[in-house]
Amino acid sequence: MMNMTAEMMNTMTADMQGMDMKLMQDCMEACAAAEQACLMCSDACSGEGMGKCASMCANCADMCNMMMRMMMRPMGMDMGVMMMMLEACALMCRTCADECMMHDSDHCKMTAQVAMNCADACEKMMVSMRSMS
Amino acid sequence: MMNMTAEMMNTMTADMQGMDMKLMQDCMEACAAAEQACLMCSDACSGEGMGKCASMCANCADMCNMMMRMMMRPMGMDMGVMMMMLEACALMCRTCADECMMHDSDHCKMTAQVAMNCADACEKMMVSMRSMS
Amino acid sequence: MMNMTAEMMNTMTADMQGMDMKLMQDCMEACAAAEQACLMCSDACSGEGMGKCASMCANCADMCNMMMRMMMRPMGMDMGVMMMMLEACALMCRTCADECMMHDSDHCKMTAQVAMNCADACEKMMVSMRSMS
Amino acid sequence: MMNMTAEMMNTMTADMQGMDMKLMQDCMEACAAAEQACLMCSDACSGEGMGKCASMCANCADMCNMMMRMMMRPMGMDMGVMMMMLEACALMCRTCADECMMHDSDHCKMTAQVAMNCADACEKMMVSMRSMS
Repeated sequence: MMNMTAEMMNTMTADMQGMDMKLMQDCMEACAAAEQACLMCSDACSGEGMGKCASMCANCADMCNMMMRMMMRPMGMDMGVMMMMLEACALMCRTCADECMMHDSDHCKMTAQVAMNCADACEKMMVSMRSMS
Repeated sequence: MMNMTAEMMNTMTADMQGMDMKLMQDCMEACAAAEQACLMCSDACSGEGMGKCASMCANCADMCNMMMRMMMRPMGMDMGVMMMMLEACALMCRTCADECMMHDSDHCKMTAQVAMNCADACEKMMVSMRSMS
Repeated sequence: MMNMTAEMMNTMTADMQGMDMKLMQDCMEACAAAEQACLMCSDACSGEGMGKCASMCANCADMCNMMMRMMMRPMGMDMGVMMMMLEACALMCRTCADECMMHDSDHCKMTAQVAMNCADACEKMMVSMRSMS
Repeated sequence: MMNMTAEMMNTMTADMQGMDMKLMQDCMEACAAAEQACLMCSDACSGEGMGKCASMCANCADMCNMMMRMMMRPMGMDMGVMMMMLEACALMCRTCADECMMHDSDHCKMTAQVAMNCADACEKMMVSMRSMS
C-alpha cells in the first residue's frame, strides 16, 4: 500500500517547502499503523473492562489518523501547525504506550510498540523541520 | 443537541479531575461548530479553485472533530495531552481563519468567525487547566 | 450552532438537486447528536466491561459523523450513494439503540433515544429522496 | 504495516462468527489504501478547481476509513450492518472511480485504480458473508 502512497505523493505538484519526503513517508506509515493497532486494542480492552486503555487508544487512533491526513494535504500545509501537531501526536502516542505497557495482553504489548514507533517518527520529522528554518 | 450532550456529560462517572465543565461544554460546542463550518467551506472552496483554503479547512475540520472527541472520552483523559492538543487546535483554527479572511465569499467570512470562536474556547480552557495545577 | 450551519448551507451555490433542505438540516443535526452521545456512551461502557455496547457505539459514532459529512459536501453529492448510506446509517443506529436498551445505565438509555432519533431522521430523508425521482 | 495488523487480529479473542479472515485482511488493506489515495486526490483536485472530484474523494476517504474501523472492532460486529456498509462503500468507491477516470491527471488515474480495487475487495467480502448464512 505504501508504495502506492509514495508514488502518488511524487505526482503532487504542491510546493512541499523543502520537506524531507522520506521522513514524511515513514511518518505517514507509522501513523497509519498506530491508528490500526489502537483501534483493535481499544476494542479488545473495552471487553476486558480496561476503560482507561480503551479510551486512550481511541484518542490515539483518532489523533494518528488526523496526523496522517495533515501530511496528505500538501495544498494547505502550514509549518507551524504541522510542528505543533507532530508534538501533540508524539506525546499522545507515548502516553498511550505507557498505559498499554501496564497490561499483559498481547494486543496491549503490540500496540505499545507501534505507538512508540509512531512517536519516534513524529519526533524525527520535527527535528528535520526545525533544522530547515 | 448540546443540552443532551451537557445532560449526558453529567451522568458520566469518570473522574473529571476538577475540570471546569461549563468551559468544556463551550469548547465541545465550539469544536463541533467549527468542524461543520470548515467542512462546508472546504467543499465550496474546492469548486472555486481555492485549494489552499479548501485544504486548510479540511485539516481544521478533522482537528476540531478530534478535539471534541478527546473531551467526550473522560475515561482516558490525560491533562498533558489535552493541553497540548488544545494549543494545536487553537493554532490550527487561527491559521485557518487567517486564510479564510483573505477571501470575499460568504462561506469564508462565516467560517473565519466560527474558527476564531473555537480558538478562543480552546484557549480559555487551556488557561483554566493551567490554573488548576 | 445549527443556526450557523443552516445559514451557511444557504450560502452554498452547489446544485442541491431539489433536496428538501429542512429534512437535511434535521438529519445533519440528528447525526451530530448521535455521534456525540455514542462517543460518550462508548467511553463509559468500556469502563464497565460492556465491550459489545462500547464497540457498537464507536462504530455508530464514526458512521454518523461520516453521514453528516456527506450532507455537508454538496459539490460531490451523488443521490445513489447518499440513499444507500442513509439506509446503512439508519440500520447502524437501530442496531446500536437495541444494544443500548439492554442496559440500565443512564448513558445507555439516553444514547438509545438519540440513536433512534437519528435513524428516524435518516429514514425520513430517504423517503423524501425516493419521491423525488 | 499490514503484517502487524494481521498478526494483531490473530490475538483477538472476540468471536469472528466464521468470517473469512484472509478476505477481511485484504479488505482492510484496500480500504486503508483507498482512504490515502482519495485524501491526496481530493487535495490536489481542490487546487485545480475540480470541485466535484475533490468532494467525492473526500467522502470516499471518510467512508473507507469508517469501513476499515468497523472491521477492526470485532467486539460489536453485526453481520447485517457490516453487509450493508460494505455495499455502500463499494458503491461509493465505484462512483468516485468513475469521476476520477474522467480526468487526465496522474493522481486521478491512480486513485481510480485504488478505489476500484477497494470496491472489488468489499464485494468479495459481501459474497463470502452471504454464503455463510
